[in-house]
Amino acid sequence: MPNGTGADTPAMSIIGYDPAGAWEYPAAGAAELLEHRNPAGNTWIDIPTLDHDAVSALAAEYRIHPLTVEDILDPDQRPKAEEFDDYLFITLKAVHRETGYEQISIILKEDTLITFQEKPGNNFDGIRKRIMNNAGRIRRFGTDYLAYALMDAVVDGYFFALDSLSDTIEALENRASDDTDSRLMTDIQKTKQTLMRLRRSVWPLRDSISRLIHSDSPLLHEELAPFFQDLQGNIVQAAETIESHRELIAGIIEVNLSSISNRMNRIMKVLTIISTIFIPLTFIAGVYGMNFTHMPELGYAYSYPVIWGVMILTAAGMIYFFKRRRWI
Amino acid sequence: MPNGTGADTPAMSIIGYDPAGAWEYPAAGAAELLEHRNPAGNTWIDIPTLDHDAVSALAAEYRIHPLTVEDILDPDQRPKAEEFDDYLFITLKAVHRETGYEQISIILKEDTLITFQEKPGNNFDGIRKRIMNNAGRIRRFGTDYLAYALMDAVVDGYFFALDSLSDTIEALENRASDDTDSRLMTDIQKTKQTLMRLRRSVWPLRDSISRLIHSDSPLLHEELAPFFQDLQGNIVQAAETIESHRELIAGIIEVNLSSISNRMNRIMKVLTIISTIFIPLTFIAGVYGMNFTHMPELGYAYSYPVIWGVMILTAAGMIYFFKRRRWI
Amino acid sequence: MPNGTGADTPAMSIIGYDPAGAWEYPAAGAAELLEHRNPAGNTWIDIPTLDHDAVSALAAEYRIHPLTVEDILDPDQRPKAEEFDDYLFITLKAVHRETGYEQISIILKEDTLITFQEKPGNNFDGIRKRIMNNAGRIRRFGTDYLAYALMDAVVDGYFFALDSLSDTIEALENRASDDTDSRLMTDIQKTKQTLMRLRRSVWPLRDSISRLIHSDSPLLHEELAPFFQDLQGNIVQAAETIESHRELIAGIIEVNLSSISNRMNRIMKVLTIISTIFIPLTFIAGVYGMNFTHMPELGYAYSYPVIWGVMILTAAGMIYFFKRRRWI
Amino acid sequence: MPNGTGADTPAMSIIGYDPAGAWEYPAAGAAELLEHRNPAGNTWIDIPTLDHDAVSALAAEYRIHPLTVEDILDPDQRPKAEEFDDYLFITLKAVHRETGYEQISIILKEDTLITFQEKPGNNFDGIRKRIMNNAGRIRRFGTDYLAYALMDAVVDGYFFALDSLSDTIEALENRASDDTDSRLMTDIQKTKQTLMRLRRSVWPLRDSISRLIHSDSPLLHEELAPFFQDLQGNIVQAAETIESHRELIAGIIEVNLSSISNRMNRIMKVLTIISTIFIPLTFIAGVYGMNFTHMPELGYAYSYPVIWGVMILTAAGMIYFFKRRRWI
Amino acid sequence: MPNGTGADTPAMSIIGYDPAGAWEYPAAGAAELLEHRNPAGNTWIDIPTLDHDAVSALAAEYRIHPLTVEDILDPDQRPKAEEFDDYLFITLKAVHRETGYEQISIILKEDTLITFQEKPGNNFDGIRKRIMNNAGRIRRFGTDYLAYALMDAVVDGYFFALDSLSDTIEALENRASDDTDSRLMTDIQKTKQTLMRLRRSVWPLRDSISRLIHSDSPLLHEELAPFFQDLQGNIVQAAETIESHRELIAGIIEVNLSSISNRMNRIMKVLTIISTIFIPLTFIAGVYGMNFTHMPELGYAYSYPVIWGVMILTAAGMIYFFKRRRWI
Repeated sequence: MPNGTGADTPAMSIIGYDPAGAWEYPAAGAAELLEHRNPAGNTWIDIPTLDHDAVSALAAEYRIHPLTVEDILDPDQRPKAEEFDDYLFITLKAVHRETGYEQISIILKEDTLITFQEKPGNNFDGIRKRIMNNAGRIRRFGTDYLAYALMDAVVDGYFFALDSLSDTIEALENRASDDTDSRLMTDIQKTKQTLMRLRRSVWPLRDSISRLIHSDSPLLHEELAPFFQDLQGNIVQAAETIESHRELIAGIIEVNLSSISNRMNRIMKVLTIISTIFIPLTFIAGVYGMNFTHMPELGYAYSYPVIWGVMILTAAGMIYFFKRRRWI
Repeated sequence: MPNGTGADTPAMSIIGYDPAGAWEYPAAGAAELLEHRNPAGNTWIDIPTLDHDAVSALAAEYRIHPLTVEDILDPDQRPKAEEFDDYLFITLKAVHRETGYEQISIILKEDTLITFQEKPGNNFDGIRKRIMNNAGRIRRFGTDYLAYALMDAVVDGYFFALDSLSDTIEALENRASDDTDSRLMTDIQKTKQTLMRLRRSVWPLRDSISRLIHSDSPLLHEELAPFFQDLQGNIVQAAETIESHRELIAGIIEVNLSSISNRMNRIMKVLTIISTIFIPLTFIAGVYGMNFTHMPELGYAYSYPVIWGVMILTAAGMIYFFKRRRWI
Repeated sequence: MPNGTGADTPAMSIIGYDPAGAWEYPAAGAAELLEHRNPAGNTWIDIPTLDHDAVSALAAEYRIHPLTVEDILDPDQRPKAEEFDDYLFITLKAVHRETGYEQISIILKEDTLITFQEKPGNNFDGIRKRIMNNAGRIRRFGTDYLAYALMDAVVDGYFFALDSLSDTIEALENRASDDTDSRLMTDIQKTKQTLMRLRRSVWPLRDSISRLIHSDSPLLHEELAPFFQDLQGNIVQAAETIESHRELIAGIIEVNLSSISNRMNRIMKVLTIISTIFIPLTFIAGVYGMNFTHMPELGYAYSYPVIWGVMILTAAGMIYFFKRRRWI
Repeated sequence: MPNGTGADTPAMSIIGYDPAGAWEYPAAGAAELLEHRNPAGNTWIDIPTLDHDAVSALAAEYRIHPLTVEDILDPDQRPKAEEFDDYLFITLKAVHRETGYEQISIILKEDTLITFQEKPGNNFDGIRKRIMNNAGRIRRFGTDYLAYALMDAVVDGYFFALDSLSDTIEALENRASDDTDSRLMTDIQKTKQTLMRLRRSVWPLRDSISRLIHSDSPLLHEELAPFFQDLQGNIVQAAETIESHRELIAGIIEVNLSSISNRMNRIMKVLTIISTIFIPLTFIAGVYGMNFTHMPELGYAYSYPVIWGVMILTAAGMIYFFKRRRWI
Repeated sequence: MPNGTGADTPAMSIIGYDPAGAWEYPAAGAAELLEHRNPAGNTWIDIPTLDHDAVSALAAEYRIHPLTVEDILDPDQRPKAEEFDDYLFITLKAVHRETGYEQISIILKEDTLITFQEKPGNNFDGIRKRIMNNAGRIRRFGTDYLAYALMDAVVDGYFFALDSLSDTIEALENRASDDTDSRLMTDIQKTKQTLMRLRRSVWPLRDSISRLIHSDSPLLHEELAPFFQDLQGNIVQAAETIESHRELIAGIIEVNLSSISNRMNRIMKVLTIISTIFIPLTFIAGVYGMNFTHMPELGYAYSYPVIWGVMILTAAGMIYFFKRRRWI
């Protein structure tokens, strides 16, 4: 068996397996790959980047429709599943913690499955190992089970992303009633956009997988129906979690706006009370600061303490008024 | 008959019944349970915790699909009902006043029904007693009626939770027009989240029970159709009550925001009026506090009372102006 | 013919009718009722309260399903229509100006119709008189027409309630732009809740009557199809009127919030202008109230009138500035 | 041919036409009308007011169902289309610039079409002239084309109303950013209600015409399918224009609320700045207006100009602070 | 071959093509066009303006239904696709960067395709060149592929418009947290209206293309199904991008309103603090500015520095109070 390619060159690979055994062959190009096809058993060809030449070569070899080729090469393609004469085409978005979103396209034929990934990365290493080590059911079934396993791994990625979003939302919730947090709204909107990005990956998938299940394609064998229904159930659960996260975010916004408004109320109250108490007192002091020659009160011996009494009573009266109205 | 297990060890139990009689056998493990199966009549096996060993043993014995086993063991599984070759699988969320949410999974076969509970607790004691005491219809029918009775008990739990939420919402409604209640919005959001949690239990159930009813499974006998339709009606009623509670909560928020805004208006009005009256008066007093040598008014005998008159008239004019505009 | 029961005891009654004639027999209990059944022609049994004994007796006599009995006795039952083997069961909410909501349950059999009312009251007196006086079509048709007539009377009650709500909403609309009406929001929410209560009666009925019409039950004769379709049309119209009322209420809230906000703007404007004019003037007066020994202006002969000129010019300048910005 | 009735008495009329010719006969009553029916060809009877006698006479003659008669006579009837044994019944709302809404009911039989209008007016004069002058296709087809032409005229009226609403909305849009326009919100709500009134006419029509098209009624001939589909397309376009108008109105409200809020911001800013500058200055002046015997600064020769310097520096510092924060 | 018309006269043109070759003939009028029709192979007639005469002449020649003619000539026609006896009629809106919206109508017959454009412009020059140069698949297929290619070009135009809107929205997003940008709301509403205009072009197209695909028209050949499904997928993607843009705009409004409100909070806070600190100090200064004869404090030697101490302590106390409440 030949050596694999270097560590930082993403290698194309071809894997052959049947219940009895499995082998893997990393190749530098499509021609090399095709030479090593499996005469019997199942074949999985994995193209880890959007290599135009490799896509063309495989498309020619496996008679893939030109529109499918266009969809594979367009990284903005909306998730969908389509049935062609002798293959199923599924394209969906995988999400990774480090590398973000990536488009995965799957061509499912009777004995062959081809995956095209947008960005290099070891997305499917787990599945590769399960094949090589004969773990679980994977070698007992055909390429349709492999397609299920790949999509299940992608959907698991959605749940990882949703869990991480849950934490972010919980952190936002704790900040929601902090009425001085002026960056909160921007952070909320960022989280909302991350959520909506995920939603655009999950929602179209929901419909297309549902249509796939009900398509009665001979490429999806009867015995796998429970697996695909389970996958569909998981996608629905992801979609519902997304909607429930949206509700939470809307609630955070409501609580925050209400907190800020309450805070303003408290500040305004203090201003009102202090100003309203001192402005009349200042007026009284101003009156007796006037310089009229004939102001008899100015000469009385007890005027000054009496005026202090008037001012204290005025202030006390206003405080009583505010207390009675429960403004303090 | 053997003794039950200790009070604080949740015992698995197997119950056998037919119209003529009923018996119960508590067991410490799955093997012991299976030894005591009922050769004739109906059998109900209850596993009160997510005991992996017991689930595996029962799955092997009753040929339960691996995906069903996964769903039973995943406490975050979304409520659903699935038809398999020789059994129905139903998973749903029960809600208890003390212990909160719990996942209940039901495997319904022709003569056997298995329940898996997430947390120990005496959820189904009422049904157990009805079987042992031959109360009502339960012993006359098969395991499908038992499944109905169990689900009916769970749905009753939703109504208990909704009644308790009704009380909470009523209390919130009474606080809604209290414009000084700064914790109200947080309390409202908490109630809303409790409601949304319940909604996530009820809504998926609605669809899956509806699909179950229309599935024509031979495991659900014709004569039970009215019972399952009644159950479905109750779930729909719970779902609608939830929506109606959401509307109430939205209304409480509206009333509260409007109350707070009205309160601010009243406070601002007082500030406006007191400030607007005294600021010009203070200015007048300030003018005659100036120390110019040549201010003829200062020397006139009647200047001081005239100025008081001017100030009183100014204040009265402004009060009249505010009254005419209905600001006081 | 026996006498009726006393004025304040709600009497059960049995009415027999055919195209040729009609008779009525009020009875104190179910047993007495059943003795007077009509051997030929149509029979209408009316139970004016939720009398458990009477319901049980009639259920036994007419083989009514236990679930139907439960629904009849539960005053919180959601409106619905169900088809059983030999009867139709319809439960709906009637609304009366004086007594509020009441649950009406109807059992429709080939020659017999039974009505169960939640609260005593003369809901169906009009229909009773039409039967006794042979007015309109009612005696020419069977019990299905009677069921139609009863439901039509209930739906008419919805329109009365909606008319009364229309008046309330119109009154609220007139108060909407009154920006000092602090009780308006509470009144709006009360009206909204009344509307939502009605909605919960009407909406489930819409679906269930629709299903009834399309059920091809032999109990609903072909010739009555136009009547039931008309009934359905009326229910749809009631439902749409409710939605349109909701839109109106939402509009009232919008207008009111906008009015209050406009009012605040006007008040703030007055505060702004008066304060902004007098605060600088007060400062000028304060400057010349200072007691420095060396303030040459104080001694000049024309200082005082010049300062008045400066103050008047300052005020006029600010008024001009506000006018140019269209703030006054 | 007899003379028509007087100019201000709305005349009933009967029109007969076939490809070869057409005649019209205005009559004072239903009996007179029925005498002049067309033995061959198509007949159009037009009753321009809700004349109970005429409706009864025609209903008896043409065996119209009592429920249809009720619907014709109820001016609040919701738009709908119903298929009866030997006629189609269509009721819809026409809208005129001058007279507002009017109910139009159409009875379509094989050779006869009857129109009932709620208010007198020359709604259908254009169609009448097309029949008399043999303009277009109208005389070549049967009564179903006439029904199409009448409904098309009504739907054209919706577009006239929508065009007029477009102008109103455009005018509101121009006022949207005028933040001093306190009547705007009331005007917006009025426009919204006009729109919602139109919506209540258009939306039910959409569903009922769609059902009519798919009903395969023998009264609607195959060759007219494109016309009815075109009509349906126009109704859908009207409905969508209504929704798009609602969006525009919602946008106007948003812009206006935002403008008002921005205006408040500008006013508050001026208040903040002027007050915040002068209040500390007034305090400084106040300090040196105190009458203590021992205030050494008062006697210094340069105290007064130094204090002016301090005050000017304070004011300049605050202005610099506000400018740096971009508040001015 | 004749010369084309002048550069600024939009020329009608007729193009003939088959797998073997292609030719183009520009003509000044419909009569000239029709003379040059292709006896064999496919014909594409392009009418670049809404020329009534040309439309009439072509309608007569190709037996186009009068309603189709009306739709072609109405530039406000809603996008739709209709199947007639021997042709398909598709009308849709193209959007160009420079010229805005334009209505394109397509008549698809077995060997002939006619396009009617609302405004002159070189919309379809790319497709014309592909035909003339035999680029890609276009000459190998029939007129249905040409229709696909034309619609695909129009849908590509939607994506160009959406990309340009993306840039606008991103620019708005950057301005969203600029709380002094009073023109932002107007700009947002303008962008929203541009988006809604596009939405009104895309949404009806989605439904009508979907119906066309499922219509089994013999004019759309089986082998083109993947192309039309791809087109449909693109339209759905455009529609979803529009919805996602709407969400973004709603988020921008939320962030901006929140920013403005936060800014107001900061400004109010400064006003509160400065006013609340200086108003009591001014009062104290006012008290000792009073001119009473008997004010013993005035004569004490240390009164003045003590009062300064009192005033500084008062201010410090208030600042401490505000700091403790985290208002500074």
